[in-house]
Amino acid sequence: SMPSALVLFADGSEEMETVICVDVLRRAGVETILASVGATSSEHPLICSRGVRIHADCPAHHCHDLYDVVVLPGGQPGATTLRDSKIVQKLITKHNEAGKLIAAVCAAPIVLAQMCLLKGRNATSHPSVESTLVEAGATYSQNRVVKDGNIITSRGPGTCFEFAIQIACSLSGDDNSADVHEALAKPMML
Amino acid sequence: SMPSALVLFADGSEEMETVICVDVLRRAGVETILASVGATSSEHPLICSRGVRIHADCPAHHCHDLYDVVVLPGGQPGATTLRDSKIVQKLITKHNEAGKLIAAVCAAPIVLAQMCLLKGRNATSHPSVESTLVEAGATYSQNRVVKDGNIITSRGPGTCFEFAIQIACSLSGDDNSADVHEALAKPMML
Ligand SMILES: [Cu+]
Repeated sequence: SMPSALVLFADGSEEMETVICVDVLRRAGVETILASVGATSSEHPLICSRGVRIHADCPAHHCHDLYDVVVLPGGQPGATTLRDSKIVQKLITKHNEAGKLIAAVCAAPIVLAQMCLLKGRNATSHPSVESTLVEAGATYSQNRVVKDGNIITSRGPGTCFEFAIQIACSLSGDDNSADVHEALAKPMML
Repeated sequence: SMPSALVLFADGSEEMETVICVDVLRRAGVETILASVGATSSEHPLICSRGVRIHADCPAHHCHDLYDVVVLPGGQPGATTLRDSKIVQKLITKHNEAGKLIAAVCAAPIVLAQMCLLKGRNATSHPSVESTLVEAGATYSQNRVVKDGNIITSRGPGTCFEFAIQIACSLSGDDNSADVHEALAKPMML
């Protein structure tokens, strides 16, 4: 059956990161839900970091399934809202304990730092939050995408295609699948 | 004063291309309006090519100003809707006659081909519509971004950051501005 992904976003999330993750995963055949955090209703769009208004498929508190990956886009104040959300913490804990992938890009690795999931792990982030990861015990990398166990991290909008392709490869069971790269990179003109 | 941009999109436009153009231009200090084509109301979001629902700032028929650039994202059936829209044709004609920039990525150069704006011009597009450009008299290029006079074209989601940066450079009056590249590429981690 199709692998599944849950992408979480909030007001002030980076719209390019949010949309690249959802779109590339759907191109890869991953059943992908875009869920809102902190909104009172899914009737209204969220307002992203540069003012683009995007509708969630549903609010995060309606997502009771177990997905194969939980994806956190960056952007501020979106990443801080995700970090401080009890619903996000509960979803991450549940998926981490089930051995599912957790993926965070740009400022969003601060969510994983706060939850002590980066201690002794190789990880990266946007440079602006490097010290938060180091203080949480991460072995900081400047690579564009870093995978350590079930945790995938990446740096920003410009690394987000590679980040999403890494997630798709990992879901296919092959961390560097030539087939996935060929199927995704070529039509996108990467 | 700030330069201005009008980004046009429709149901079935490529959401990554739409959002990258709007976001990068806003990061560059360009006053950017995202306008919908073919929707009956701006109360409802458009449904993009991979199902992401994005709100326009206003419907295109409300856009009576002269902008410094008109930007057309690709994706299907969005690009075909843009091509067949009388409002889009009117906006492009008005801006082209005023010597403003016209920029199209992915499948959207078919709009310019149909309007005979590519005859004798260097241009590129997604490979899937290359023959349409050649038949319209374009000198086809496989470069990732091509500027010829006031027309800027590019290839797909993976070239869209470069496309948007080229637009920002051109609006700053310097087609290869090191300052614009530094200001945009570095924080985006390109
Ligand atoms: Cu496209």
